[in-house]
Amino acid sequence: MDHVVVQNIVRADLAIAKELGKAGVATVHEAQGRKGLAASYMRPIYKGASISGPAVTILARPCDNWMLHVAIEQVQPGDVLVLAVTSPSDAGYFGDLIATSLKARGGLGLIIDGGVRDTKDLEEMNVPVWSKCVGSQGTVKGTLGSVNIPVVCAGMAVNPGDIVLADDDGVCVVHREEAEQVLEATRARLANEEEKRQRLADGELGLDMYNMRQRLADKGLKYV
Amino acid sequence: MDHVVVQNIVRADLAIAKELGKAGVATVHEAQGRKGLAASYMRPIYKGASISGPAVTILARPCDNWMLHVAIEQVQPGDVLVLAVTSPSDAGYFGDLIATSLKARGGLGLIIDGGVRDTKDLEEMNVPVWSKCVGSQGTVKGTLGSVNIPVVCAGMAVNPGDIVLADDDGVCVVHREEAEQVLEATRARLANEEEKRQRLADGELGLDMYNMRQRLADKGLKYV
Amino acid sequence: MDHVVVQNIVRADLAIAKELGKAGVATVHEAQGRKGLAASYMRPIYKGASISGPAVTILARPCDNWMLHVAIEQVQPGDVLVLAVTSPSDAGYFGDLIATSLKARGGLGLIIDGGVRDTKDLEEMNVPVWSKCVGSQGTVKGTLGSVNIPVVCAGMAVNPGDIVLADDDGVCVVHREEAEQVLEATRARLANEEEKRQRLADGELGLDMYNMRQRLADKGLKYV
Amino acid sequence: MDHVVVQNIVRADLAIAKELGKAGVATVHEAQGRKGLAASYMRPIYKGASISGPAVTILARPCDNWMLHVAIEQVQPGDVLVLAVTSPSDAGYFGDLIATSLKARGGLGLIIDGGVRDTKDLEEMNVPVWSKCVGSQGTVKGTLGSVNIPVVCAGMAVNPGDIVLADDDGVCVVHREEAEQVLEATRARLANEEEKRQRLADGELGLDMYNMRQRLADKGLKYV
Amino acid sequence: MDHVVVQNIVRADLAIAKELGKAGVATVHEAQGRKGLAASYMRPIYKGASISGPAVTILARPCDNWMLHVAIEQVQPGDVLVLAVTSPSDAGYFGDLIATSLKARGGLGLIIDGGVRDTKDLEEMNVPVWSKCVGSQGTVKGTLGSVNIPVVCAGMAVNPGDIVLADDDGVCVVHREEAEQVLEATRARLANEEEKRQRLADGELGLDMYNMRQRLADKGLKYV
Amino acid sequence: MDHVVVQNIVRADLAIAKELGKAGVATVHEAQGRKGLAASYMRPIYKGASISGPAVTILARPCDNWMLHVAIEQVQPGDVLVLAVTSPSDAGYFGDLIATSLKARGGLGLIIDGGVRDTKDLEEMNVPVWSKCVGSQGTVKGTLGSVNIPVVCAGMAVNPGDIVLADDDGVCVVHREEAEQVLEATRARLANEEEKRQRLADGELGLDMYNMRQRLADKGLKYV
Repeated sequence: MDHVVVQNIVRADLAIAKELGKAGVATVHEAQGRKGLAASYMRPIYKGASISGPAVTILARPCDNWMLHVAIEQVQPGDVLVLAVTSPSDAGYFGDLIATSLKARGGLGLIIDGGVRDTKDLEEMNVPVWSKCVGSQGTVKGTLGSVNIPVVCAGMAVNPGDIVLADDDGVCVVHREEAEQVLEATRARLANEEEKRQRLADGELGLDMYNMRQRLADKGLKYV
Repeated sequence: MDHVVVQNIVRADLAIAKELGKAGVATVHEAQGRKGLAASYMRPIYKGASISGPAVTILARPCDNWMLHVAIEQVQPGDVLVLAVTSPSDAGYFGDLIATSLKARGGLGLIIDGGVRDTKDLEEMNVPVWSKCVGSQGTVKGTLGSVNIPVVCAGMAVNPGDIVLADDDGVCVVHREEAEQVLEATRARLANEEEKRQRLADGELGLDMYNMRQRLADKGLKYV
Repeated sequence: MDHVVVQNIVRADLAIAKELGKAGVATVHEAQGRKGLAASYMRPIYKGASISGPAVTILARPCDNWMLHVAIEQVQPGDVLVLAVTSPSDAGYFGDLIATSLKARGGLGLIIDGGVRDTKDLEEMNVPVWSKCVGSQGTVKGTLGSVNIPVVCAGMAVNPGDIVLADDDGVCVVHREEAEQVLEATRARLANEEEKRQRLADGELGLDMYNMRQRLADKGLKYV
Repeated sequence: MDHVVVQNIVRADLAIAKELGKAGVATVHEAQGRKGLAASYMRPIYKGASISGPAVTILARPCDNWMLHVAIEQVQPGDVLVLAVTSPSDAGYFGDLIATSLKARGGLGLIIDGGVRDTKDLEEMNVPVWSKCVGSQGTVKGTLGSVNIPVVCAGMAVNPGDIVLADDDGVCVVHREEAEQVLEATRARLANEEEKRQRLADGELGLDMYNMRQRLADKGLKYV
Repeated sequence: MDHVVVQNIVRADLAIAKELGKAGVATVHEAQGRKGLAASYMRPIYKGASISGPAVTILARPCDNWMLHVAIEQVQPGDVLVLAVTSPSDAGYFGDLIATSLKARGGLGLIIDGGVRDTKDLEEMNVPVWSKCVGSQGTVKGTLGSVNIPVVCAGMAVNPGDIVLADDDGVCVVHREEAEQVLEATRARLANEEEKRQRLADGELGLDMYNMRQRLADKGLKYV
Repeated sequence: MDHVVVQNIVRADLAIAKELGKAGVATVHEAQGRKGLAASYMRPIYKGASISGPAVTILARPCDNWMLHVAIEQVQPGDVLVLAVTSPSDAGYFGDLIATSLKARGGLGLIIDGGVRDTKDLEEMNVPVWSKCVGSQGTVKGTLGSVNIPVVCAGMAVNPGDIVLADDDGVCVVHREEAEQVLEATRARLANEEEKRQRLADGELGLDMYNMRQRLADKGLKYV
């Protein structure tokens, strides 16, 4: 297997990424047809953070964070790091030192199918991470991986340059080529939701608002 | 299997529910003979919330939240929704829209053996949820389940109208017919604990306060 | 198997423990050669707490917290309780009453390969716990274990008197005999990190700071 | 909580149990409307065993197998033991000695939400067990539970006397009052399946046999 | 999201697939640079089976096996079905009826990130399955997915037509375009291993055969 | 951290190890006071194997099997390899080549808190392994660990030279210094069990044989 660093990737539009990020993971996931979510074990290290940007992808060896250092050089302002591993590990690949470097490059945060440490520092630095766990196990720099190749991170297939967004609800990928179309669908969904929210707050039932009663009866639901 | 919505359930007394809720999950669980807990994987989506009320139960299909809409209509002020599934799933059955509807009906919150999303909104709305996970996966409305039948949620057997209480320590059920008796036992336990707390704070040892030394020696404990 | 309480244990130096605690779990773990971590499932019940002190160890039976009461008597100011179990359980061995007693003795907190309850009270009391889970299941006082014998807690081998430190990043043990040496290595590491942090913040890349480029090329990494 | 042994339970019909057992877990589960399954982590300790009979239920304390001894006295020929625990444990509650006793009473086997040991002996004795795990941890006889009360075992609600069947596919309960009706539905399903099996073996597609093509097109499936 | 069935996929060469299958998962995984494995939770339902062939991929909804029926029509002799789900589930998507149909079409077996049932029948029929679990929960036919699109199954990214091989050691994918090159590397590896096996059997140490002693000393390994 | 290979370890007596192995894991674990078990996730790769011998211990880095090669040289006939890792991994550290070497040295088998591959070959070679999982992920030879130092493997603390026994019921350690005493206790237990087995087979109840009835009544058990 060749180990490569792909330097010139095509990034999704930053403005689109930003607007999708504001809409949030749950809404965007729905708007693009209920696809693209990472596994639900991926949790933020602190609450309230929200990021969205083009992915710089990393395929790393378990307990080896060498490729993180390589990837930092490829980061442009607004990027999101996405680290996948060739074998599961809960080592602490990422801490305050690399976070300092990521921040200096303008990177927004990290999605990692592994562990992270120095979590208190990271929160103070405003460098959010979504990870499989918090883990302090030290890593080595011994074996090559790759940067900016397609990866599978926590069950989510990500190509370099795809938009990855993350918030308290989890992590989602929007493929670069579909970004514009997903943005439109997202806007439509948001507009639609606002009106529904008001009607539900006013006491209207979903059963009526969505016209479910007949279909429920047809399927055989009995009220007793 | 028939799919039913039981409309007229007998609810446990709201005042009892409220007082049990104040006592808290750990205390009530003890007071009723150490039974009734949900599995420890059921966690609140934010800290500090505490609810207690009669259960409106839902048996749903995996990744299908249709019955949630049906159940909302059955909710009365002070009720707690309890959703069990026929097969495990971490989809996001419940979000801010249904939460708006639940709140409009006076429901207190949700206990769900599955996923929940829009967690930041839910915290702002004061609609607490205890769930297996945070999950954004969209659900369908395609297959019937039932409302207000006996269910098993996260290992906890709940009948409609039973009191379900939840706080930072987890989730517990008190069967409706035993509610009054459990309340009495809870009061007794609380009174008893207060005195003990003071003695322990003053430096008395549990070994002495509970007269354990002789029994430990009888069992063969050796101090070396 | 004899069940014993070892009363006169040799404790690690409190000043060393305190300084290691300030350095934090991740740093100390690195400084001592990347060993001594507990499993990453050990999480604090609230964020921001940090403790470090000599271990009073407990080997308990599953769902039986009798030995906790026995151990409290052995606690001296600055100690950390470490509870291991002979078989896995997520029962709630520790709550606000025992915590009151632990605090009265000057104990700093608890590391437990099991469950804990009354977590809201514990946070208000400033008695931090690192545990496998939050669990309310009541425990019994029926079977002997031991106090202050070597134990394995969450995969971490602890001798009584060893330094156990815990913070948001997890839990780590430093063996008493190695404490001084580890402290020195920790100080060196901290000094070294400070300088690196500044260089990274100024935009220098880890690739350059650590002289990685040649070694990466030698291993075969290709930039495309 | 009172601890009771209910001695005179009404058992489901043995002939029905036997016929349901032959149909198998998957078929019976379907025939009764896709309910009644235990969690999929319940696995047989050896392949090829199949049992079905009225349940003698046990609610035990974690790591305490006292109630197993109590329950054995209640076993009649053809019964199936079902052990639930008040808190999760993987201790080895059941081994070759109790199995000898169970066999002497005519019991068919054990369903246990915990551990089992002496598995090689059990296979030689033809005493099958479906369990959460194989575990050798020794248990105590220190705390009461109950026998023949309703229990929740691995997420499956079982009343004493209900039919519990188990085979390589898992474990399923059929409530006593529904047994006859479920048997009828099972027979119908088996008859129906036989014909389908033949048609599929002959090369007919499910798409055609079940008339799915139109409905797939209506839903929007596109062939490209 | 469009739901599609891609009918004309380019399949990897059957002869290559067969030879890779004989080499086995562990060897092929190594030969292609240690990539392509499915997660280790994917286990065969019976031991000793081994398959290798072009993938017909399925993206299914949780607890919904409709797309399996659609996919069967696309199967050609020698194909391997690979089923991924949009959200985790341990339902029993595949049983003896669909297996009959798969076998009639010449399909070799199934890789499924979900559950399977009728496992005893499947073994008798020689239709092997590698799955996340054995699960009997009935599925519905209510929501569309897709057939022959790129999927992520148990962390393994599979394109339709790629070679998927599976044996007692797990599951591995070889991308179609790399198949020939991987085959060559596999042959080389096998030849190389045979000689090594003999030398090791004769008592030569790996330390000597691989010339490790100097490098170990250089790294600092001390013999005491 | 120094990386060492301790060459001259004191081994437990082979005859004692053999006799303990015949008694089996469950019995020996009981006889030594219910201690020493590995976690229940440690499972044999095939059924029916049983080994017992002095431990040669390995502390390895995750996904790095270099130290296995180093350890093989230290193996004497009758030894059991025990591999612990500094961080969890399910990589395949051990396969048929190293197994060939282990067998050539007279080693009995491997206990590994990680993955193993070539499982079919290992069964044919009669080299049993108890592992966390079956995993094929290739490992590297890049970072030092140690051989024959005290380790914690799957929660079990093992010193080099201790007796480690394993069978279908799991894995257990007997410390070398206690081996003789444990053997005596084991013999007593076996003799005792034989008589009990016969009485239970003859229909005597454990309730009577162990004189439990009075104690159950005293604790408050009610027959209804």
